[in-house]
Amino acid sequence: MIEFISSNRHKFVEIKTRMDECNLGITWVRMKYEEIQADTTEEISLDSAKKLSSFRGKPFFLEDTGLYITSLNGFPGPYSSYVSKKLGNQLVLKLLDDERSAVFLTVLTYWDGRSFFQFSGKLEGEISLVERGKNGFGYDPIFIPKGKDLTLAEMTVEEKNEISHRSRALNKFIEFLRTNGMP
Amino acid sequence: MIEFISSNRHKFVEIKTRMDECNLGITWVRMKYEEIQADTTEEISLDSAKKLSSFRGKPFFLEDTGLYITSLNGFPGPYSSYVSKKLGNQLVLKLLDDERSAVFLTVLTYWDGRSFFQFSGKLEGEISLVERGKNGFGYDPIFIPKGKDLTLAEMTVEEKNEISHRSRALNKFIEFLRTNGMP
Repeated sequence: MIEFISSNRHKFVEIKTRMDECNLGITWVRMKYEEIQADTTEEISLDSAKKLSSFRGKPFFLEDTGLYITSLNGFPGPYSSYVSKKLGNQLVLKLLDDERSAVFLTVLTYWDGRSFFQFSGKLEGEISLVERGKNGFGYDPIFIPKGKDLTLAEMTVEEKNEISHRSRALNKFIEFLRTNGMP
Repeated sequence: MIEFISSNRHKFVEIKTRMDECNLGITWVRMKYEEIQADTTEEISLDSAKKLSSFRGKPFFLEDTGLYITSLNGFPGPYSSYVSKKLGNQLVLKLLDDERSAVFLTVLTYWDGRSFFQFSGKLEGEISLVERGKNGFGYDPIFIPKGKDLTLAEMTVEEKNEISHRSRALNKFIEFLRTNGMP
């Protein structure tokens, strides 16, 4: 069993749903961990994993996701979770005009007990004009993936998992585990 | 000479102006340092100072300043510098309606070679309707201190220093140095 470290239940549900489909067991370690301020999600996630590895005995992975809005120079990026909590979707919508393209980026960092590995997944799309849908969390109600009509919050977990940034990173990780074996 | 560690020239100028008036010498160490993500400026600043103290030989101080906008639940708070860079004042103005009160908070952390000391300073005020003034930096053009008509960016360094959050924290620090002696 690999440990997934996160304080976010929604992330755990999405990841467990996909891991179950692949018959891979994970344990949820519900905790917050230290994150530095940095420009890239890769850097923040690797730093956190290194700190966690110094006191956790078993292999684990964690994931960090950011929404990068083009017209806002990539804001909220690495601070997506803070901004979501403080401003919420209504105020984020208020910041936008006609140019609404955005990218969701997930970086998953895995520690196998000795080394660190990173897997990333991207989802391009645009910010909707209004919030729509009750599923998912965070920015899901205002994000419409490219080529779709629904926001991520109007999809089921399974539908979201078919295309999402998080599942794309996760699929690379699962492929890695299949090639290199479970820890 | 105490070292002031910061990548921000404006902060150095304000602090040096005030220290000069008190005949206290400082050296500017122009560098960026690691900051964690946390809810309070105190926590972030103390963590940075602890990390810096592990490899710097001489006494130093650093300062962290955040703008806490009431109607935005304290946003941008600890991420003021990031938000200023990414959004800028125009977009911050777009987030606000009638309720415009805000607080500037500076936390100064000093390491005397053995222990850590923190000094804080606050400035209450409100966010202006438009940007005004060319002095200062960051949110100065949109912040009107309580009881004043001018924004901080419409004041000279000396005028700003008479009332600012930064100089209030600094004055406590100077008082401390006078009582306990320069390192």
